[in-house]
Amino acid sequence: MRLSPAITELMRALRTLPGVGPKSAQRMAFQILERQRDAGLQLSKALAEAIERVGHCSVCRTLTESEICELCANQNRREAGLLCIVETPADVLAIEQTGQYQGCYFVLMGHLSPLDGIGPEDIGLDTLAERLAQEPISEIILATNPTIEGEATAHYIAELARQHSINTSRIAHGVPVGGELEYVDQATLGHAFSGRKRIDFDLF
Amino acid sequence: MRLSPAITELMRALRTLPGVGPKSAQRMAFQILERQRDAGLQLSKALAEAIERVGHCSVCRTLTESEICELCANQNRREAGLLCIVETPADVLAIEQTGQYQGCYFVLMGHLSPLDGIGPEDIGLDTLAERLAQEPISEIILATNPTIEGEATAHYIAELARQHSINTSRIAHGVPVGGELEYVDQATLGHAFSGRKRIDFDLF
Ligand SMILES: [Zn+2]
Ligand SMILES: [Zn+2]
Repeated sequence: MRLSPAITELMRALRTLPGVGPKSAQRMAFQILERQRDAGLQLSKALAEAIERVGHCSVCRTLTESEICELCANQNRREAGLLCIVETPADVLAIEQTGQYQGCYFVLMGHLSPLDGIGPEDIGLDTLAERLAQEPISEIILATNPTIEGEATAHYIAELARQHSINTSRIAHGVPVGGELEYVDQATLGHAFSGRKRIDFDLF
Repeated sequence: MRLSPAITELMRALRTLPGVGPKSAQRMAFQILERQRDAGLQLSKALAEAIERVGHCSVCRTLTESEICELCANQNRREAGLLCIVETPADVLAIEQTGQYQGCYFVLMGHLSPLDGIGPEDIGLDTLAERLAQEPISEIILATNPTIEGEATAHYIAELARQHSINTSRIAHGVPVGGELEYVDQATLGHAFSGRKRIDFDLF
């Protein structure tokens, strides 16, 4: 039998969400239509509004509704002179939850991946270079994921920082290698921050 | 830190989906906003359209965009004289996938649950009684879930069928007791159909 087109389309659209397979999508669609229509309409509206309103912070590139995000607008943080480089907004959230870092961020929204055609400009490194030239940054903390791409991206940015004579550190490998920063527990991530090591170019 | 209001509201709305906790909702929201905005807009539209268009079949109560669903509109199925009673539209799908049943359905959209104030009219048994009085139904197959409420509902409908002198059967307990029909594999469910037993009122 065929389900009615609107139900079929709803199930297809739900399957585009991460972690949602055909059976979960069916369960979600039926639950919404059988007894959560108000919640379903609210979700429809929340999706449309977030997609319309949320863009990127003009300073750090993270997702925000404002021209400049809350963290970049914080004078105390900017005066701290620390800039932490992460791959995603979820990484900013994870680091903020440790409570151990009071500086600013730069969010790459990805990592270098030459095979996928993702080069320096695609992850905002031209914008980052301008900031390094203009702002009084005392230390760059590289908190990209400990994956091959994340490490390569960290090395690239370390070289950029070196050209501007800015001290650069990499968060310590309390973070499990091969894992994703977003899923690390707070204690481990806090430890990784406090145990960060300055990058010594002589070793390269 | 606080995320921007539109992102926070999107995460809250995603958590109303079954099986979606705070971490999954965050992952979904960021994935949509970072790289699936088109898919997110399609989901928003699919939700609104399904909720607006999908109602209940006036004959069997299942979810459909039409006045009468595809199965109820099928002349061959109506002439078969079989009526299978299930709790949800997902149960109809599961039974159809076995390919072993060619009759019609009546979808309760729930089960009797006096403690929750759910009585016979709430699950359409007044509509069902009218159909039993008017249509030439030769057999009713009770395929409610093998739970306490499902069994109680089956007994109630069996009594209704008896008043109209209609043969009534219960699908065989190949279905695991305490489980939900929707999650049973096709072979077990097909077996449950072929092994159904006529309800003998002398045993009550
Ligand atoms: Zn910012
Ligand atoms: Zn129908």
